[in-house]
Amino acid sequence: MSDGFIRNQWYVAANADEVGDKPFGRVLCGEPVVLYRKRDGAVVALLDRCPHRKLPLSLGAVRGDEIRCGYHGVTLNAEGVCTAIPSQSGPVPKGFGVRAFPVVERHKLIFVWIGEPVRADERLIPDWSINDKPGWTTVFGYQHVAANHLLILDNLLDLTHLPFVHGAVLGGDGYAENALEVEIESDAVRLRRPMPDVAQSPLIVLTRKFAGQGNVDRAQTSSFKAPGYVFIGLWVGPLGKPDELAILYAVVNSVTPESERSSHYFWSVARSAALDDARVSAEFHRLTVAAFDQDRIVLEAQQRAIDRDASGAPLVNFRDDRAGVAARRIIARLLAEQEKMPRVA
Amino acid sequence: MSDGFIRNQWYVAANADEVGDKPFGRVLCGEPVVLYRKRDGAVVALLDRCPHRKLPLSLGAVRGDEIRCGYHGVTLNAEGVCTAIPSQSGPVPKGFGVRAFPVVERHKLIFVWIGEPVRADERLIPDWSINDKPGWTTVFGYQHVAANHLLILDNLLDLTHLPFVHGAVLGGDGYAENALEVEIESDAVRLRRPMPDVAQSPLIVLTRKFAGQGNVDRAQTSSFKAPGYVFIGLWVGPLGKPDELAILYAVVNSVTPESERSSHYFWSVARSAALDDARVSAEFHRLTVAAFDQDRIVLEAQQRAIDRDASGAPLVNFRDDRAGVAARRIIARLLAEQEKMPRVA
Amino acid sequence: MSDGFIRNQWYVAANADEVGDKPFGRVLCGEPVVLYRKRDGAVVALLDRCPHRKLPLSLGAVRGDEIRCGYHGVTLNAEGVCTAIPSQSGPVPKGFGVRAFPVVERHKLIFVWIGEPVRADERLIPDWSINDKPGWTTVFGYQHVAANHLLILDNLLDLTHLPFVHGAVLGGDGYAENALEVEIESDAVRLRRPMPDVAQSPLIVLTRKFAGQGNVDRAQTSSFKAPGYVFIGLWVGPLGKPDELAILYAVVNSVTPESERSSHYFWSVARSAALDDARVSAEFHRLTVAAFDQDRIVLEAQQRAIDRDASGAPLVNFRDDRAGVAARRIIARLLAEQEKMPRVA
Repeated sequence: MSDGFIRNQWYVAANADEVGDKPFGRVLCGEPVVLYRKRDGAVVALLDRCPHRKLPLSLGAVRGDEIRCGYHGVTLNAEGVCTAIPSQSGPVPKGFGVRAFPVVERHKLIFVWIGEPVRADERLIPDWSINDKPGWTTVFGYQHVAANHLLILDNLLDLTHLPFVHGAVLGGDGYAENALEVEIESDAVRLRRPMPDVAQSPLIVLTRKFAGQGNVDRAQTSSFKAPGYVFIGLWVGPLGKPDELAILYAVVNSVTPESERSSHYFWSVARSAALDDARVSAEFHRLTVAAFDQDRIVLEAQQRAIDRDASGAPLVNFRDDRAGVAARRIIARLLAEQEKMPRVA
Repeated sequence: MSDGFIRNQWYVAANADEVGDKPFGRVLCGEPVVLYRKRDGAVVALLDRCPHRKLPLSLGAVRGDEIRCGYHGVTLNAEGVCTAIPSQSGPVPKGFGVRAFPVVERHKLIFVWIGEPVRADERLIPDWSINDKPGWTTVFGYQHVAANHLLILDNLLDLTHLPFVHGAVLGGDGYAENALEVEIESDAVRLRRPMPDVAQSPLIVLTRKFAGQGNVDRAQTSSFKAPGYVFIGLWVGPLGKPDELAILYAVVNSVTPESERSSHYFWSVARSAALDDARVSAEFHRLTVAAFDQDRIVLEAQQRAIDRDASGAPLVNFRDDRAGVAARRIIARLLAEQEKMPRVA
Repeated sequence: MSDGFIRNQWYVAANADEVGDKPFGRVLCGEPVVLYRKRDGAVVALLDRCPHRKLPLSLGAVRGDEIRCGYHGVTLNAEGVCTAIPSQSGPVPKGFGVRAFPVVERHKLIFVWIGEPVRADERLIPDWSINDKPGWTTVFGYQHVAANHLLILDNLLDLTHLPFVHGAVLGGDGYAENALEVEIESDAVRLRRPMPDVAQSPLIVLTRKFAGQGNVDRAQTSSFKAPGYVFIGLWVGPLGKPDELAILYAVVNSVTPESERSSHYFWSVARSAALDDARVSAEFHRLTVAAFDQDRIVLEAQQRAIDRDASGAPLVNFRDDRAGVAARRIIARLLAEQEKMPRVA
């Protein structure tokens, strides 16, 4: 049975600050999930559907470490076990409750494992440590996109769209002119595009790190990790000094399917300059939202065009799509492996 | 042929004051129906689809005792018989027209019979006489709910949801703590929940009937009658005087399917105290609307959750759902009987 | 293969002033089409779907005589041939590009041929020359209608709806009282309704041509030409002088299917009096929009009623529907012929 999603993987369910002592509902790979924090701050993830009459538990209330349904007061603990049924006296029937999902809070993100709990392996969580690393200042965001997650991954893995989609906001110098190097591994894809002697983009200018220097040497590296993680490093250094090329800022992208035609897109931008400068943080946030809004318009129009195309012709791939093509192959292989996996849960 | 609705029954189509000398359209059990009043005030119910080019007649105009289509002026009398075709000279073809539905105005409601006209039996109309009985003051309302009618009946027949859904508006003391007595008959279900020595709810306080008395003795009775009628009596009396327990106010509920996923919900609240007090009437109306809006949010979320649940697992029933379960069994039995009924119309 | 649309015909895609040096997208018979003007003003019509990742080209930009996709900069010339792929070095692969549609600008309208290009014959374009003929002043409009194109043609070919739908705006005297003459040819339908001795309608009054004359002699002629063209002539003359009866104003209607349930409706109203009077032009425009808004309400309600009618009963035709019935027969015959046509493109 497949719904087109790799289930035995960690997916980002929320930015850490989205979850508190009120229930928070989000659909991940077609599964409704409710998240909340216990009194000690630990995050709980349960199926967001009361086992009684199916009302989403996210419409209920957190009571201590438990969640209470907003319809008839059915109460479930952090393991999803029902502890109280107000409209029925006597003990709660054994086994009555909902699925609890493995959940880990790390790097200011909430990761949830939708698949078989015994396979949940924390080592599979991506290393997004740049999100809370000393020496970096990070801004966070979330966007709902009415498009399939693979279209978002294509977008993130072919940055030749920068001058055409984001020219006005992010600047796009150096992308179309310089060749992309792609390295494909079994479960990961790595990209690198050196961009020597190009103008400073608006975000570089904002950091003031290279103020007064005119053109700089730049490079952009990306790496994809299944099921939906893309790290983009923006390297900048003074002209002609390759040893000084370093990541000025990085964009951390986590894409989680909601349905076949909609996705959750979590991003953060971590910078190594102009630390703790609130005005620079605000501008990084504003410009990133503006750029991702431009992407969203493209992605949603693309999804509608694909849905409308009765010919069902496949997408055409250019040379610089090879990273996206490789990512799609990895996802397809993991999906096929999942189909053959014995059920252990 | 079944669309899941019991057709040989009376359904409320409108509150009496919704229908006047302008055509009024509403879809009942999937059938578009247009209602209007003749010059003598009698209500007419016709299929809301011009027999010519299918425009809803409710977009037309009432002319005397007849209705005229708003497209080409096709005119139909109160029996649905076409009396004029402006775009064609000569006599109107015999038998040209639309279905007329049996319709009865009673207790300030318009009841329509969607099924076979010869089976329409006025004795099947529920006794909603409290709506216009001397000694009672009644407020009326209507709500569209994007949920199946059975979910609304479940809601009305298990009032243990009061403290959880309506606590802030109606007060919920006494519901979870006291056992519900249920009596099941062949075509009806009767419930009773004694609630001795509890606080006065906001509606009781409003009537001022027990002003200054603190806690009171209360009881709540409900009765269900197919296909979608629920009478709820709220009994209140001074502490420890069971002989003085009487209905302070009653909620009269009529649920009519619109489609499989949407319903019409007609309600009235009749009270036996603070009669003709316009401020109390306004507050009874405002609080009832507020409470039913709370229900609507729950019911529509429940419907969406059921639609999304690919497992299709059945709803789970608790002990206090037994009245709703019995009502669903009566409806299922009547539906099965309808399938076997010979067609007489 | 048929989608219910006659493809080997010219359809109006836009009013001439809708298309300029920005890409303009519209779906015609289910095909997404992008229109733009080259530097010399000539109109280009291409499939509105980038051959790379399917983004609508209408979200891109015109560059000289070419169009550039707004995602990765794929550039296509006016023949739909790809001329540049920024994200891939080396020559563009032969044959890479999109369909170009035959397109003709005539009579202030843009006509597009969706079918096989070799069959595109300009002689099939309707003679809408009244739109830009000396001695006439014309106002133009466009409306999107969420209804099948055949319902719009029915509407245009049975003007007995005038008094019922448009009485307040256009006046409807003379329509129901006078018989319609219908002449049916192989590919065309012609109608004539003499209306002697009737009141001046609001549009006649506006021209002031018969000011102070009271009743006039009128006639209305219509002619239908496949696939979706209807010319309506409004003839007016002084009472009892048949030789002076002449077209005072004409309504030129072009209906283009968008989908099975939605259509594009292009109209112009050309008048032979009060020429170049801006106030009269503004009023002709305002009243025509008002009347077509009344039609749109009817047409969209009719489409919804047809979709909801589970019986699927056919529409009923009256005597004055015979022009519409004949038009539907012509369209059905052309569709059947198209099915048998050998593919030449």
